[in-house]
Amino acid sequence: MELHIAVSKVKKYASSQSGDTVEVVERPNGGLSVVMADGQSSGRGAKWISTMVVRKVIALLAEGIRDGAAARAASDYLYTERGGKVSATLNILSIDMLTKSLVITRNNPAPVLLSQDNDLQCLDEPSLQIGLYRDTRPKISEIALAPGLVAVAYTDGIVHAGSRYGQSMDVEDKLRFLLEYSGASCQKIADDLLQHALDLDRGRPTDDISVIVLQVTDKDGDEVRRMSVQLPI
Amino acid sequence: MELHIAVSKVKKYASSQSGDTVEVVERPNGGLSVVMADGQSSGRGAKWISTMVVRKVIALLAEGIRDGAAARAASDYLYTERGGKVSATLNILSIDMLTKSLVITRNNPAPVLLSQDNDLQCLDEPSLQIGLYRDTRPKISEIALAPGLVAVAYTDGIVHAGSRYGQSMDVEDKLRFLLEYSGASCQKIADDLLQHALDLDRGRPTDDISVIVLQVTDKDGDEVRRMSVQLPI
Repeated sequence: MELHIAVSKVKKYASSQSGDTVEVVERPNGGLSVVMADGQSSGRGAKWISTMVVRKVIALLAEGIRDGAAARAASDYLYTERGGKVSATLNILSIDMLTKSLVITRNNPAPVLLSQDNDLQCLDEPSLQIGLYRDTRPKISEIALAPGLVAVAYTDGIVHAGSRYGQSMDVEDKLRFLLEYSGASCQKIADDLLQHALDLDRGRPTDDISVIVLQVTDKDGDEVRRMSVQLPI
Repeated sequence: MELHIAVSKVKKYASSQSGDTVEVVERPNGGLSVVMADGQSSGRGAKWISTMVVRKVIALLAEGIRDGAAARAASDYLYTERGGKVSATLNILSIDMLTKSLVITRNNPAPVLLSQDNDLQCLDEPSLQIGLYRDTRPKISEIALAPGLVAVAYTDGIVHAGSRYGQSMDVEDKLRFLLEYSGASCQKIADDLLQHALDLDRGRPTDDISVIVLQVTDKDGDEVRRMSVQLPI
């Protein structure tokens, strides 16, 4: 099998920097984790928060700590640092090679979409952002790795896209279309979802937007591991 | 301008895991850093070392510490942890948005190749790996960001490719060809260099191999930041 991950991000219109942070890191026992945080509000303050949260989670994962424990630790840490006054959403998508599973950790009211065997599911069990209360627990789903598995996570920039103009995005419907009709690559799915949100916001995103798409294929390609990054500077 | 980074990695033939670690992280003042370490020997022990080194560097960079200081700290840390008995090579390629420059940090006998204005340069000033001595200093080069800039860094799997069969790879020549004749994308350059090394090793790499290609283009694309990862699982 082959794992593909794509991340597409854009910052709020006219904002100095994105308050969303997404990082991909190797796990000590093989596999990797994508960690995404959206700091409360936008700009520099939000970036500081989301970076702090992602760093904390990454540092803990690197020590072999499990995703759920890392999310709880990040919540307690943010709560303690900011006295419960600042929140962040947190998602972790991990490929755990010990259990051969995809582990989805949500501290985010926004859902994670999951497609297995051509069946699209919305993981939308109520889930709180971190930092506001002691003892905030994440929602965790564990899914056996199998070809065809697709998971899509995003920040609330997608959820609120178009809201200024009385519109909203049906992410599930859009994703279903992309999966069914285009046999799209991971990056294409991430880009199309982001572009759709940008269109609804008329090209001027009203919030930072980040989309993660993770896909497991049955391709037995080469043994090469690849990573690429593209950004405007 | 647009920044493109591509990383291609493969592990030593029949080895459980690669002893090379490469991670890309955001810098607190904008821009990003690619950190690559190759732990002494191969397999699990080497992975442990390279992960430790990369984590240390990333944690320091995240606090705003400059690349050179982070490399020196990582060296002292490894030296102290392992009593000077274990070494690792370390490269950091950073896009620093405060100085609008590419900062290349080398603690690696292997050179870094740099192409500016169609002129290919080999940064091969003698440079020691970290961990063996106190006070090991990196070689640092700082280059103003400009379209057309290309930097290529790699671990010694490239340097020793083919050595078992009495052959060796002329990386400079190969890169010159890729830049001149194919107008190749970043990922294509990384893949082609890696493939050439694999061919010289007859498909069974005698060491872990990692290649990083960083490219600055004059393309004024969209404002979207993209990241993608592909790996066999």
